Amino acid sequence: MRKLINNPDAVVEEMLRGLALVNPGVRLEPESRVIGRKDFGKKVGLVSGGGSGHEPTHAGYVGPGMLDAAVVGNVFASPSADAIVKGIEMANGGMGVLLIVKNYSGDIMNFGLAAELARDLGIEVAEVIVKDDVAVPDSTFSTGRRGVAGTIFVHKLAGAAAEAGLNLFEVTRVAQKAIDNVRSFGVSLSSCVLPAVGKPGFEMADDEMELGMGIHGEPGLERVKTMIAFEAAEYMIGKILIDLDYRDRECAVMVNGLGGTPLMELYIMAAEVDKLIKKRGLDPIRYYVGEFMTSLDMVGASISILRLDDELKQYLFAPADTPGLKEKGKCWRCQ
Amino acid sequence: MRKLINNPDAVVEEMLRGLALVNPGVRLEPESRVIGRKDFGKKVGLVSGGGSGHEPTHAGYVGPGMLDAAVVGNVFASPSADAIVKGIEMANGGMGVLLIVKNYSGDIMNFGLAAELARDLGIEVAEVIVKDDVAVPDSTFSTGRRGVAGTIFVHKLAGAAAEAGLNLFEVTRVAQKAIDNVRSFGVSLSSCVLPAVGKPGFEMADDEMELGMGIHGEPGLERVKTMIAFEAAEYMIGKILIDLDYRDRECAVMVNGLGGTPLMELYIMAAEVDKLIKKRGLDPIRYYVGEFMTSLDMVGASISILRLDDELKQYLFAPADTPGLKEKGKCWRCQ
Repeated sequence: MRKLINNPDAVVEEMLRGLALVNPGVRLEPESRVIGRKDFGKKVGLVSGGGSGHEPTHAGYVGPGMLDAAVVGNVFASPSADAIVKGIEMANGGMGVLLIVKNYSGDIMNFGLAAELARDLGIEVAEVIVKDDVAVPDSTFSTGRRGVAGTIFVHKLAGAAAEAGLNLFEVTRVAQKAIDNVRSFGVSLSSCVLPAVGKPGFEMADDEMELGMGIHGEPGLERVKTMIAFEAAEYMIGKILIDLDYRDRECAVMVNGLGGTPLMELYIMAAEVDKLIKKRGLDPIRYYVGEFMTSLDMVGASISILRLDDELKQYLFAPADTPGLKEKGKCWRCQ
Repeated sequence: MRKLINNPDAVVEEMLRGLALVNPGVRLEPESRVIGRKDFGKKVGLVSGGGSGHEPTHAGYVGPGMLDAAVVGNVFASPSADAIVKGIEMANGGMGVLLIVKNYSGDIMNFGLAAELARDLGIEVAEVIVKDDVAVPDSTFSTGRRGVAGTIFVHKLAGAAAEAGLNLFEVTRVAQKAIDNVRSFGVSLSSCVLPAVGKPGFEMADDEMELGMGIHGEPGLERVKTMIAFEAAEYMIGKILIDLDYRDRECAVMVNGLGGTPLMELYIMAAEVDKLIKKRGLDPIRYYVGEFMTSLDMVGASISILRLDDELKQYLFAPADTPGLKEKGKCWRCQ
């Protein structure tokens, strides 16, 4: 097994210890596996989470301008409702807490239950469900579309709205607006290897590509011979643009690596995407290229496109300081 | 071939177009393959470069607080002296230019020649050579130690010194001080696949690990059975600490992925490194975990440790805003 790990059953605990090292502004609750901000002012709290194996999602997005707590489950498995309640408590600054949940059955169930339990504790809790993946209408672990890398935009925009002092109703509105305006599609060139399994979940030939594969290796639309970057980008962009009308609109574009694909190839994909969407009338004003929501060591990439208006643009460019995403805000050198 | 590329012979041009998209503060000179800052004040210019395939190194570090230009060669091949001269001209703000060069024969020759040519054009040029890899005394492409991920610290510290307005002599002194205080060691669990070749440069069994492999797949110290993360970290730390006395000193630690290793494993490595170096009397005050200097899709990781004093610490924490490394400086929310 080509992995730098110790005990396969301890990868989550050990990974979280490492993550806490790079982000001195957080504390780790090892029992419940929550990463939460140490200090934040009176504001709406933002909580996300889900199975691990998607780093830096979600624990890497805890910090000023994004999440206040992330609750981390086992590899590809939802955290427990009890752990999520702990996260809600850590994120509660007295103005209520918004849960940002990707649309997978386990997460829907456990975050929903946790919301009820937290309300019983007197905390005001709202919830949004991200379902940005246009690949398949239903999937192995989801009824309805899956939530994938577009979730990072929801963290960013809702996070900025919360930092701006908006109330729970308004922050929830901004999060839902982000969800309504983002679409994603991914392709993979390999399975991923779960630490506890030690071999690929399924076999893919060296010259095969899965179009629309999920971030847990769920089946996509079809298995084809490997496309070149231009063909893959054209296919993905086609699927995204047919689902939402982006014409003549400013947008932000994320080209996300799934764990095993190097940055060089993500930049090549970004260059293709840029040519294609400009030809289709989109106005891309910001690119994010890198690993934002991975699938262990899977080879592949996803594209997410966020349609912007003035309000979303303002929150997109607001400052953020997390290991997974940093945004300087208006000044970077005003010391 | 599990790669999202188009023409294997065009990966560098296409990758640079994508990189320019994520960094609106730069312009790309496609002919000479230089990425340079559009605007910078009167300051010492910083130029680095080398073969591509190591993204975000070096072109991803062009921006405020780090490099002013990066010159990009073919995959694993040095850029030409003419291209480097172009980079020097782009980075020249009237206070001279410092070249930060990794110790590989091709780079040494071409950057050295470019420095001479630029001096003939009336530009004051200084040069530092990074040789942080303690694995082997000489290597396939180097006489003396190889330059690897510790180079990013040199970019950061010299970049901050240049932004602070220091003159060429002083910026060069800071860069050399960074070089004198950083050591690195890497391990790999696979070869990498060159786009133009399409298959691994050599075979490694699934249960093998190369200790001290170079970032172009150059041989390391030995091939062993795969170690667990703790054992690998202990071995790597041992090699680094025997080479430089870090005891009772503050330090910055980089755990760098080589392209095919997911963030989860890098965090696990970081947690091991932290335990080990604290036991040995080091005081780690800052961790960098992610992909900073890759080797295409190679599976593996390197550790770099920078020994700090008050001067280096000040430059380490100064603001920077590049795709590869962002540092907020003292304020992130002063809008």
